Amino acid sequence: MKSISQKLADFSCGFSYQSLTQDQIAKLKLYFLDWLGSAYAGASQKPVQMVLSVAKSQGGNPQATLIPDGSKSSALMAALVNGASSHVVEMDDLHRESILHPAAAIIPAVLAAAEAEHAPGKDFLAALAVGYEVGIRVALAAGTSHYNFWHTTGTCGTFGAAAGAGRILKLSPEQMAWALGSAGTQAAGLWAFLVENAMSKQLHPGKAAMNGLLAALLAREGFTGAVSILESEKGFFRATSQDFDEKRCVHGLGKEFWFERNSLKYHASCGHTHSAIDAVLEATRGKSMGPQEVSSVKVRLYQAALDLLGEVQPKSPYLAKFCLPFCIATALLYGRVGLEAFSEERLGEQKLRLLMDKIQIQPDPALSSLFPRMWPARVEILGTDGNIRSGACDYPKGDPENPISQDEAWEKFRWMTREILPMDRGSELLEQVMGIDEMDDVCGFMFVPH
Amino acid sequence: MKSISQKLADFSCGFSYQSLTQDQIAKLKLYFLDWLGSAYAGASQKPVQMVLSVAKSQGGNPQATLIPDGSKSSALMAALVNGASSHVVEMDDLHRESILHPAAAIIPAVLAAAEAEHAPGKDFLAALAVGYEVGIRVALAAGTSHYNFWHTTGTCGTFGAAAGAGRILKLSPEQMAWALGSAGTQAAGLWAFLVENAMSKQLHPGKAAMNGLLAALLAREGFTGAVSILESEKGFFRATSQDFDEKRCVHGLGKEFWFERNSLKYHASCGHTHSAIDAVLEATRGKSMGPQEVSSVKVRLYQAALDLLGEVQPKSPYLAKFCLPFCIATALLYGRVGLEAFSEERLGEQKLRLLMDKIQIQPDPALSSLFPRMWPARVEILGTDGNIRSGACDYPKGDPENPISQDEAWEKFRWMTREILPMDRGSELLEQVMGIDEMDDVCGFMFVPH
Repeated sequence: MKSISQKLADFSCGFSYQSLTQDQIAKLKLYFLDWLGSAYAGASQKPVQMVLSVAKSQGGNPQATLIPDGSKSSALMAALVNGASSHVVEMDDLHRESILHPAAAIIPAVLAAAEAEHAPGKDFLAALAVGYEVGIRVALAAGTSHYNFWHTTGTCGTFGAAAGAGRILKLSPEQMAWALGSAGTQAAGLWAFLVENAMSKQLHPGKAAMNGLLAALLAREGFTGAVSILESEKGFFRATSQDFDEKRCVHGLGKEFWFERNSLKYHASCGHTHSAIDAVLEATRGKSMGPQEVSSVKVRLYQAALDLLGEVQPKSPYLAKFCLPFCIATALLYGRVGLEAFSEERLGEQKLRLLMDKIQIQPDPALSSLFPRMWPARVEILGTDGNIRSGACDYPKGDPENPISQDEAWEKFRWMTREILPMDRGSELLEQVMGIDEMDDVCGFMFVPH
Repeated sequence: MKSISQKLADFSCGFSYQSLTQDQIAKLKLYFLDWLGSAYAGASQKPVQMVLSVAKSQGGNPQATLIPDGSKSSALMAALVNGASSHVVEMDDLHRESILHPAAAIIPAVLAAAEAEHAPGKDFLAALAVGYEVGIRVALAAGTSHYNFWHTTGTCGTFGAAAGAGRILKLSPEQMAWALGSAGTQAAGLWAFLVENAMSKQLHPGKAAMNGLLAALLAREGFTGAVSILESEKGFFRATSQDFDEKRCVHGLGKEFWFERNSLKYHASCGHTHSAIDAVLEATRGKSMGPQEVSSVKVRLYQAALDLLGEVQPKSPYLAKFCLPFCIATALLYGRVGLEAFSEERLGEQKLRLLMDKIQIQPDPALSSLFPRMWPARVEILGTDGNIRSGACDYPKGDPENPISQDEAWEKFRWMTREILPMDRGSELLEQVMGIDEMDDVCGFMFVPH
């Protein structure tokens, strides 16, 4: 009778690029591109610069790229730094059902391993799929009570990082099960930081990536780990959850792919503002409407969004991301709600303030009854021209039910990296990502120093 | 109102060499020497060589010594490798009340930081005291239910490593509290490995040391952590314990020193064999008695020792450490039970087998009632000369109530390192440890490559 992680190991080792459908390949490329944009966008943030500074002080063999400064260091240091960098602007992906941010914890480990091993692009994509699938399934199985104390991206992300890195390292199934054991016994990350707004949120994905990679590297040397790490009496699930369901790790494994149901964040604000923004953009077709063109805006939303965001005042660029009127006004005036929307300058902008005063937001019982299956919003804009423009959104753009197009993903990448990468380098990098399956060696990536 | 870790931080930052009594200084030197012996003794073990191999593949700036091969690497890699190396022969210290092996998790972090910072020996000793005190107090407060799932040396050891390393890095109290926050949110280590006999037991102290050091390095850069990591609603104690008592972290802090009540293991076998061995050595005064001189040996012990060890057969050198008759026979024949006692050669030795057949072990209700306050044993040896030799031990040698002398600690260090260090280098190193408070820079340590 195989343990759960032995079954996950069998899946991980047996999965290859040839196992992927064209649609899955296209998705994985966009996940990687999306992550890369976040990793660049976070580069100059203070917590990232601090982690980078520690990594530089430690040094390491030049195996993998530290994206925040384009230098090379050891694979472990690259995983740590890039993990920290890719979560900080809060634009990285989210697997909704498992409440896991897979990219930030998993891709840094897979990429660092792939650079160190000079892995081909096809293996990289297969390893991404494996890492996502294992991380997401462990997080699904860990249950919602796990999330009471534990930051799933830090804890369950470690398993995904180990599986993905282990796939790059060509671990045997036996070694892969050890790697998952060593991953589980390193898994950590508590929510205690949240009320204090401490920087641990950046440490968690960085450490998940680093610890998962370490687990895989150790397993390759023959270092054993508990193969029953997940379900054993003294194992991960019992230690960290009251409602775990270990079967979710393996149900349909290799046939159903949870990694396909991943959300790429399209707007740079809190997820609960997204459907209102999308409804506005549907109503305006993305064209700018200023305070002189708008008489009033009526927004109906599911109750949970108002419970969470109803009282938020846009006192800082960060808080503005959680302010519904500010986000809706931005969508009206600028036709998009990107990273640039949250600056001190925008906070003081008169036109936005005038628009905000015209916005009424109300809960709608019918919409509330659809949540959380849907996150629905309805918008009616009464123009000063007397016309009414209506918009509706049930699933925020970027969710699996309403995916962003390749063009939109490219556009997001461009504005995520606009202030960091010269336009031509960004475009070249984008082309490389889209053609990664033709690369013989992912070290050929032209990660740009800046 | 300061949080618990803020209070621990105030203590840690305010504590200096001048705060130490002469007796404490003498103890800390022996703890360090004892750890160093274990770190050398573990060097050639397979799990250690595997961790070393990964660390060498990663590389790093030459800041600190990888004891298993005497080379230099980054402080983080040194903490990882030396932590793994110092627990593997199971001869490292134990703080009995907190069930924490402090040295293996804490000293590697403090030493790596001290080498990287060129810290003077006096600061090193003060940092050791701080690391031990914080680690032990967190472990005491975590309660026995923590130990159900979590390997305290891995989890609580991380706090001690962060505090000790942070003291070397001269963190401010604010930074130190952040370091403890980052330590707690990285703390990990599950008991799942034990039933599978996986190598995680070596990974845990290595990672505790590395993670604690990383927490301190990040804090120096300004990286914040939750200052209420221990007691908060989503914090370490509530996530990992049902019977924690947070007051134990701070009760008498700075006045009572738990680190003084540390046990140094004198015999190379399971702790529950130690008092029987000590009783034999008292009866024989350490002189060799072979099967021709011994008619019978009656041993009375506390019940818990028999419950744990009653059925163990010496089928391997490792299992022989848990076999009471084998350990007692070794004490009779060789007058000591050191590392050399557990070899294939010894397992096959006829004289030991003959002695084992003469040993009767029985539980004694009166002795059982004293456990766990005492771990008592009584021995009566009936000689073929008709004489009866009696011995008794209530506390195994090395426990705080029955401490080993400096000479015995030196002797232990010599036989722990005998096969690794040339005799003269071992003696020089020993002298350096004893004179560490006169060293301007602990980088002057002549850790020997081998």
